[in-house]
Amino acid sequence: MKYCSACGATVSLKIPENDERLRHVCDACGTIHYQNPKIIAGALPVFNDQVLLCRRAIEPRHGLWTLPAGFMENGETTEQAAAREAHEEANARLQNLHLYTVISIPHVSQVYMLYRCELASTDFSPGVESLETRLFYEHEIPWQELAFASVRKTLECFFNDRKQGSFPVHNLAFLAKSPAE
Amino acid sequence: MKYCSACGATVSLKIPENDERLRHVCDACGTIHYQNPKIIAGALPVFNDQVLLCRRAIEPRHGLWTLPAGFMENGETTEQAAAREAHEEANARLQNLHLYTVISIPHVSQVYMLYRCELASTDFSPGVESLETRLFYEHEIPWQELAFASVRKTLECFFNDRKQGSFPVHNLAFLAKSPAE
Ligand SMILES: [Zn+2]
Ligand SMILES: [Zn+2]
Repeated sequence: MKYCSACGATVSLKIPENDERLRHVCDACGTIHYQNPKIIAGALPVFNDQVLLCRRAIEPRHGLWTLPAGFMENGETTEQAAAREAHEEANARLQNLHLYTVISIPHVSQVYMLYRCELASTDFSPGVESLETRLFYEHEIPWQELAFASVRKTLECFFNDRKQGSFPVHNLAFLAKSPAE
Repeated sequence: MKYCSACGATVSLKIPENDERLRHVCDACGTIHYQNPKIIAGALPVFNDQVLLCRRAIEPRHGLWTLPAGFMENGETTEQAAAREAHEEANARLQNLHLYTVISIPHVSQVYMLYRCELASTDFSPGVESLETRLFYEHEIPWQELAFASVRKTLECFFNDRKQGSFPVHNLAFLAKSPAE
């Protein structure tokens, strides 16, 4: 950030009064421009014993497999955001959504919120951001070709929890930067 | 937003290619300035049968009671943000944090994430954003003087769940604007 989005003047990094962090502060109008983490909302759509994955048609991680997920938008709930992403990326309709994994990734200031849910039907297909969409049994999951560590972790939680027959919310953090993130 | 934070030129509202929403797009450099919901992280600190509330020294809702909570910062986890807010607002030290309520408030583009936790000791005191900090038994809760609907809901969930002896994560949304929010 170099310029004030309110008045167009230059901004400087300063610690405002009663604050402890450097912020971008406008040199002219004094507006403090806060920057905050973003939520990535998504879904783990289940159909009988299979889960739906999408192969990414966009960077980053073009060609790798992911759960449908993306940046939450203003004006929606986390659950609506998850359903929208599944619709956009896989033309999938979801039902019975349950918050399942909440994963902080502080070095990129992101929080994943993924919903375990049912796929309403097998009527799905790739959206513009996907090359391919398909259902996978556990033994078919392409573990070496998953796009994100959050996706891997959520799938691991799911297959473990399924053996126990109980699906608590998992609140996790990825504290160190790893190549898979 | 009127000016591009990258180059200082004016921005216009447009729907970018492969998008469906109006965004602020720079007239000169083309940067798309996305705006996304913010996370408010906080805590429900419990000490024996009592919970810790803070009376707000700042607007909005000056003088009303709240759980310690505030905007999550870049570079931290949701749990770290909750602990930091409890420290800033009540000089409180928390332990055994468990994600408890996740509440979307789409009309203000906020997501509350509140952690049920133990207060490590009764050594707490008002921070600069609080007028007063104290422990309340259930029958003492100032229900008519709570600052936010998210705080009321989280306290209601807690006292209900305590009767059952089980504290599942509650994922909720406040869809209509109400005066109490
Ligand atoms: Zn300015
Ligand atoms: Zn620009």
